[in-house]
Amino acid sequence: MNKKIVIVGLGLIGGSLAKAFQKYSECTVAGIDRNPDTLQAALDCGAIDKIGGDEDIRSADLLYLCLYPQADIDFIASHAHLIPPSCLVTDTCGIKSEICAHLPLLAKKHGFPFVGGHPMAGKEQSGFAASDADLFLDASYIIVPCGASQSAVDLLKAIAVELGFGGTVVTTPEHHDQMIAFTSQLPHVLACAYVMSPRCPEHNGFSAGSYRDVSRVANINEQLWAELFIDNRRALSEELDTLITNLTDMKEAVTKGDAEALRGLLRTGRLIKERLGE
Amino acid sequence: MNKKIVIVGLGLIGGSLAKAFQKYSECTVAGIDRNPDTLQAALDCGAIDKIGGDEDIRSADLLYLCLYPQADIDFIASHAHLIPPSCLVTDTCGIKSEICAHLPLLAKKHGFPFVGGHPMAGKEQSGFAASDADLFLDASYIIVPCGASQSAVDLLKAIAVELGFGGTVVTTPEHHDQMIAFTSQLPHVLACAYVMSPRCPEHNGFSAGSYRDVSRVANINEQLWAELFIDNRRALSEELDTLITNLTDMKEAVTKGDAEALRGLLRTGRLIKERLGE
Repeated sequence: MNKKIVIVGLGLIGGSLAKAFQKYSECTVAGIDRNPDTLQAALDCGAIDKIGGDEDIRSADLLYLCLYPQADIDFIASHAHLIPPSCLVTDTCGIKSEICAHLPLLAKKHGFPFVGGHPMAGKEQSGFAASDADLFLDASYIIVPCGASQSAVDLLKAIAVELGFGGTVVTTPEHHDQMIAFTSQLPHVLACAYVMSPRCPEHNGFSAGSYRDVSRVANINEQLWAELFIDNRRALSEELDTLITNLTDMKEAVTKGDAEALRGLLRTGRLIKERLGE
Repeated sequence: MNKKIVIVGLGLIGGSLAKAFQKYSECTVAGIDRNPDTLQAALDCGAIDKIGGDEDIRSADLLYLCLYPQADIDFIASHAHLIPPSCLVTDTCGIKSEICAHLPLLAKKHGFPFVGGHPMAGKEQSGFAASDADLFLDASYIIVPCGASQSAVDLLKAIAVELGFGGTVVTTPEHHDQMIAFTSQLPHVLACAYVMSPRCPEHNGFSAGSYRDVSRVANINEQLWAELFIDNRRALSEELDTLITNLTDMKEAVTKGDAEALRGLLRTGRLIKERLGE
């Protein structure tokens, strides 16, 4: 594919997208970032072909928003007049209800298509320095059409395949946010809550894979994730309630020494996992 | 090292120990297991040199108990009369207070040394079929001397090095159990509680590393773990209380939309993780 891409925000996700376009496609990439050092680093390593300006937005085929949710909305609000009707705008935010309450309206008003997107890949590091052309290999790419045309959705699907994603899923903003509250947000809350145990600082020598896995994402970017959590507060609160209830049930069985109840609860978990074939 | 080893219980841990002794040492291994098929499989693949009987126990240099906690105690109670004073008995249980309340007394009574041991390695599968000579590479080996001599402790340390463990830690039963409640038991409770979310069965396409990591050990052996959890009920209940309290604090900040409080809680988690250099 040979398209003119503009990427706004060269952090972990934007930087990785830029590198993936360079490695796996014939597209040209213009990068926009508020930090001149990041732009220079991206130019120096060939992640972007040029630093993007108004002209690049005017001639873009695709514009990827890779900022925080509110910053994505603000960027489009201030640059919508530059975006041609032939340019497909998409985002990479971890939540969708908030984004999809604003961007499709702005897109309609200014006459360009918008499709929500969420590459299900990440790392416990953030920023351009952590970006990687292969970050998305085999990952799922969630597409939230928000009323856009099938051809716009198909273009994003085709790009996802070209960049090495493992598959695409199409859904609504509400279903996306409900699922992400469980699959991604809850593990991040958990990791931070877990490492707050007074035992954590002395874990070394007493820990193995289980500790490493649960604590991995505690190294969180709290500015970004606090915004994502609060934008998705209803779904995340529901997941937290469910988890706290289940943990409390297990705690009661442990405290009482009720082996039968405890085995029953653990078996429920095991059977769910087994039925998923994992 | 060239010792006569008896391994009692050829599950994941016992089987892996047998294979590691074969791969990394000159020791001979006699295996004891109640399942004749397991013994045959272990013989067929060379994990054990022979099926162990009373004579092997009488001439053993080291005896590794790799059963469930109560079964380990029962085995020694019924076989202690066979164990010579020159044979070091050790176990591989995930909890130590219970084991160390019984086995050192039996050992003293019958005149052989006992040292508690806990190889900090595992897998989400169990049984001999999942055993692996390299399971312990770089893992920590926790030693709980229970009053045994320094030379007995040193022998277990030397073997751990020979089998490829990354290091050894020496501690008390109480400290071991408190640490393990956090590093190992809590993640297993969590994994089961986590997958009980109604969202779990439809996670595919919406999940990535965070889901995989938290849910990994939900595929639990509930017979074994219920026994381990209840034997360590005080420490595990305390960890569960701490975690539930921290999750509840986070949930309240999310529900209220209190970004400042939420950032503060997440920052606390991040700083703990960063200070550990992970």
